[in-house]
Amino acid sequence: MIIVMQMGATPEQIEAVAASIRSRGIDPLVLPGEDRTAIGIPASLSSDARTDIEAQIAAMDGVSKVTQTSHPYKLASREFHREDTLVTVGEVVIGGGDFVVMGGPCSIESYEQFSSAALIVKSAGAQILRGGAFKPRTSPYAFQGLALEGLKIMQQVGQEVGLPTITEVMSGDLVPLVAEYVDILQIGARSMQNFPLLIEAGKSGKPVFLKRGPSATIDEFLLAAEYVLSQGNPNVILCERGIVALDKAYTRNVLDLAAIPVLKEHTHLPVIADPSHGTGVARYVLPMAKAALVAGADGIMVEMHPNPREALSDGSQALRPEQFQKLMDEIHHLATFVKGR
Amino acid sequence: MIIVMQMGATPEQIEAVAASIRSRGIDPLVLPGEDRTAIGIPASLSSDARTDIEAQIAAMDGVSKVTQTSHPYKLASREFHREDTLVTVGEVVIGGGDFVVMGGPCSIESYEQFSSAALIVKSAGAQILRGGAFKPRTSPYAFQGLALEGLKIMQQVGQEVGLPTITEVMSGDLVPLVAEYVDILQIGARSMQNFPLLIEAGKSGKPVFLKRGPSATIDEFLLAAEYVLSQGNPNVILCERGIVALDKAYTRNVLDLAAIPVLKEHTHLPVIADPSHGTGVARYVLPMAKAALVAGADGIMVEMHPNPREALSDGSQALRPEQFQKLMDEIHHLATFVKGR
Amino acid sequence: MIIVMQMGATPEQIEAVAASIRSRGIDPLVLPGEDRTAIGIPASLSSDARTDIEAQIAAMDGVSKVTQTSHPYKLASREFHREDTLVTVGEVVIGGGDFVVMGGPCSIESYEQFSSAALIVKSAGAQILRGGAFKPRTSPYAFQGLALEGLKIMQQVGQEVGLPTITEVMSGDLVPLVAEYVDILQIGARSMQNFPLLIEAGKSGKPVFLKRGPSATIDEFLLAAEYVLSQGNPNVILCERGIVALDKAYTRNVLDLAAIPVLKEHTHLPVIADPSHGTGVARYVLPMAKAALVAGADGIMVEMHPNPREALSDGSQALRPEQFQKLMDEIHHLATFVKGR
Amino acid sequence: MIIVMQMGATPEQIEAVAASIRSRGIDPLVLPGEDRTAIGIPASLSSDARTDIEAQIAAMDGVSKVTQTSHPYKLASREFHREDTLVTVGEVVIGGGDFVVMGGPCSIESYEQFSSAALIVKSAGAQILRGGAFKPRTSPYAFQGLALEGLKIMQQVGQEVGLPTITEVMSGDLVPLVAEYVDILQIGARSMQNFPLLIEAGKSGKPVFLKRGPSATIDEFLLAAEYVLSQGNPNVILCERGIVALDKAYTRNVLDLAAIPVLKEHTHLPVIADPSHGTGVARYVLPMAKAALVAGADGIMVEMHPNPREALSDGSQALRPEQFQKLMDEIHHLATFVKGR
Repeated sequence: MIIVMQMGATPEQIEAVAASIRSRGIDPLVLPGEDRTAIGIPASLSSDARTDIEAQIAAMDGVSKVTQTSHPYKLASREFHREDTLVTVGEVVIGGGDFVVMGGPCSIESYEQFSSAALIVKSAGAQILRGGAFKPRTSPYAFQGLALEGLKIMQQVGQEVGLPTITEVMSGDLVPLVAEYVDILQIGARSMQNFPLLIEAGKSGKPVFLKRGPSATIDEFLLAAEYVLSQGNPNVILCERGIVALDKAYTRNVLDLAAIPVLKEHTHLPVIADPSHGTGVARYVLPMAKAALVAGADGIMVEMHPNPREALSDGSQALRPEQFQKLMDEIHHLATFVKGR
Repeated sequence: MIIVMQMGATPEQIEAVAASIRSRGIDPLVLPGEDRTAIGIPASLSSDARTDIEAQIAAMDGVSKVTQTSHPYKLASREFHREDTLVTVGEVVIGGGDFVVMGGPCSIESYEQFSSAALIVKSAGAQILRGGAFKPRTSPYAFQGLALEGLKIMQQVGQEVGLPTITEVMSGDLVPLVAEYVDILQIGARSMQNFPLLIEAGKSGKPVFLKRGPSATIDEFLLAAEYVLSQGNPNVILCERGIVALDKAYTRNVLDLAAIPVLKEHTHLPVIADPSHGTGVARYVLPMAKAALVAGADGIMVEMHPNPREALSDGSQALRPEQFQKLMDEIHHLATFVKGR
Repeated sequence: MIIVMQMGATPEQIEAVAASIRSRGIDPLVLPGEDRTAIGIPASLSSDARTDIEAQIAAMDGVSKVTQTSHPYKLASREFHREDTLVTVGEVVIGGGDFVVMGGPCSIESYEQFSSAALIVKSAGAQILRGGAFKPRTSPYAFQGLALEGLKIMQQVGQEVGLPTITEVMSGDLVPLVAEYVDILQIGARSMQNFPLLIEAGKSGKPVFLKRGPSATIDEFLLAAEYVLSQGNPNVILCERGIVALDKAYTRNVLDLAAIPVLKEHTHLPVIADPSHGTGVARYVLPMAKAALVAGADGIMVEMHPNPREALSDGSQALRPEQFQKLMDEIHHLATFVKGR
Repeated sequence: MIIVMQMGATPEQIEAVAASIRSRGIDPLVLPGEDRTAIGIPASLSSDARTDIEAQIAAMDGVSKVTQTSHPYKLASREFHREDTLVTVGEVVIGGGDFVVMGGPCSIESYEQFSSAALIVKSAGAQILRGGAFKPRTSPYAFQGLALEGLKIMQQVGQEVGLPTITEVMSGDLVPLVAEYVDILQIGARSMQNFPLLIEAGKSGKPVFLKRGPSATIDEFLLAAEYVLSQGNPNVILCERGIVALDKAYTRNVLDLAAIPVLKEHTHLPVIADPSHGTGVARYVLPMAKAALVAGADGIMVEMHPNPREALSDGSQALRPEQFQKLMDEIHHLATFVKGR
């Protein structure tokens, strides 16, 4: 940790900060600078201790800025866990070198709709079946999902077609219920910092699919993963799904594909991209899916619908069956090429 | 609602959209445009119907964009409820013309700390006592609050000093517990779109203090309020607390003060500003508090601490007792001047 | 164009708007809406007329919003020019299906440095040679480029190695000078809305390489291109180089790769990606270069340096010679695969 | 300056960085950290030297980040120039405690329009007359201003009503011409990093009114001022005019009012707010003007028009004569109150 003092900081203020560090049994390194003094804390501190010291020193007179030189996350960090984490769901391994596609409709609307979607997803070659039972909707007047009935449909259809399933859970108290019916718990972008939910998802032991919040930094994203990991649950899958856009005229969000190599460098957790929410436009899903693949993603999550015109939510970004098939074909060829090199 | 077709849209595609609207019993107005056609839906639709139609038409071939001409919120809209909503908590009225100050520490750390803070808040003339019992912290290793013990301290101290209280609740299942101990339920910026929480807060009937999410648009903010209102709870207080910053070097967030007159125009709900989180720096709290006042806010929420250097969270933005007193004095004089005109 | 009135707009206000449109000889379509009225302008207007009407009607009482249903750009629009524009520079064709790499150092530092860089660029198989003679630097104390001497070095080296050249020009009065020495005029991100410069670049008739501004929308980007095109110069190449980031901790900017398919859909101009400035980190250049390729870009601009540790600017994002060679190899193989399908 | 090494940095890499610093005659302080090493540069360096070292060290193996502990600007910094800079134009002093209002139309459209506007501005009590002769317009098809004719009108009208004048100059080569006719040179938000223009404006010796770019950080803003100051021209006035908005539905930009106290703390230059461009909506200009005043601004720039419905540009944000008078009255009263305390 490095504390930078204000330019006009007095010797007394500098000494007060140094004394405060010494009172914790740590020997500070005072670094008289060009036009201001910096103070280094060289000791190896626990994350808790670091966070406490930061808050308190930042409030002292004459202090300009406190900078952490360590990452604030630890369990999620590749520095402490060098090998890639593999998350296994049934026979599917995420993060192990195969490019995994999670496909399905935004919402589970009925057994017929979801079953029809699942058969298309399966036959096109995707490995995991997605669908929303509880839908987070910006408007209270929009379709909110089938809830428990949706979970039951998902479980039944998943078994019928032989695909592991993933659905979103929106609050901690629903984790046990959702965990009973589906294979992977999805935590949505709006819930990325719903800390009670992260803790319950961690406790469940189930694989957790964590979406990056629309204005979350990489550090905030990995700290959210850290909440799950700190409950003893190592099965966290990260998902880049687009950050908030300055220009919403052509795409709904900005898919931050550079986050893929950034995350692969700094964490051992698998990284998935969601080009459907990342763009919000069906015809941009395929180019962004291919871009995610070559950028190093471990897979993608893609929305499709047996009949998008009848979708009760997010119709404009869902692929039609033939578009989904085309995406699977192109992705398959590209993945084969990439792997072959 | 206005549907704008793509430039190359065929007559068949245009007719298909028109037919789809007619199938709902509505007569569309087709507007052959400069280089593309627009289609208007003149009928008076429920919000539900509008949301459904929008999703489905957006997925049709040849459609470029669907624009709502109505606001997506209704109960929150001043168009449907012209008089200002007053939220009454004990003897304090929020939104009624008096500038209300909510003060207190970020976290409730102990009876002694909170009691000491409350006495300062009260004697300086603030009307509502704030403090965190459950703390949403970006890092799982940071201080998370005293939880139930904090609620009990808050209730006891609130009664001792004679101030209504406000604290954050982070998940729907905790609403009944928190509602038992405090007067106003705060929903934090990270929880603005925690829909199960919004619904439970709505059901509680308690005043709800809703913070704007860091990247939330005004429409998303008012739709979050709509979730609470739609449960039959009219007591919603809005809080602008800073949006995500492109430059975090000098302030933590960007306090969007123009949101105050924007909100006062479009909604009848009271609007509070939070210059503490809005800037993250104690010495910018006073100028931003005064700016919020003259911009038309109904009050402010301000963090103070009996001894910021010992604060377990957010020390750098908390006012010291003498700074809080100065803020109250300046605000009092300015509010008197503004009211006198 | 569609004018949406405020909800409380009076019949007189609605009529005033309609009358104002009629006074221009256009017959407005009044669309009584759900809770507010919309007014459509169906006639085919010139861009000038549209812009004027928009400004004036937006100031009328009772008007809530004026929405253009046409794109504001015309010459840049694919709607008016369906075939891809090919920009030919020497023997290199940009936009014609071959993936073009523009490589070279950030700054031209000396004949030796630039010549050494150019030989590496050429032998690795890149088609165009880049380098800065006039450097736009955030700080007045940073290296500002060799200016005219740099242009002369560029011309000489370009001829020696047999590669077309590109360099940035920062002001309109320097266009004739720069145009004399180099093949392509680059307009930097900070200059995207330097309108006098755009006009001079247009007049020069030289190919213009236009970088997207860090917070520019797609419409603003294409309108900047329109400035060049409107001078009768059809040779405009667009470059996505990263938009302003909310999180600058890991990358300097956010490379908006979805802008590639968006631009390819809405304009006929070639689209290049700049993964060097787009990320600011040398080790993320290769994955983002490959992502740009599969997303449909016509090429990339990449910074390399014979010895990055001695670079006078932007050292942290420049590729070393062996990294540049590796990038060219991987791009070549991927481009061959993509083209073969 | 502090260099933070990557976690896995080898002793050789650390030593290479230290050696590189020593080779410049500076003795580095190596700070073995918790999980990584930091290296401090304690010597007093010129800005040039710092910028060079930063670029080169950032490219070395094992380096994670280079952080400047000094501000990158110097002449603009209050640390080096503690007293407020006063900019005097005719009899008007900007930055000296009086709240200065610069008013006038967006564009100079004709002698009649501008003269009529100027009389209103003068009689309402504003001190400086603004108006655009060269207009930067996003679209090449929008009204571009009267150019030289506009400058002549401005000079004549300014003399007739007895007000100093300000107009925008868009390129360096026009500085001498514009400087001949008007009193203050305005550099627009889009030109904030037009470095050749900044240098010419600096050389002119005229007062320079510098607007913050829409996505500029505070450091970038002050470095732009530094360009002007470094030409020996101390007369720089800063203007906050709104940063790029995530939500453009209700306001055009986000007026960052906290930038006022931030700037007043870190620089000695006067700070003006522009609530007209900052919101883009006439009815939000007054509350934001008052907010800027109490936040500590030295003045405001406000657009007005004798008849906004006939404005050739920006009609929706211009105040009508009676609105401008009301603003001047309210500002006058508030300024008197604030000064009296």
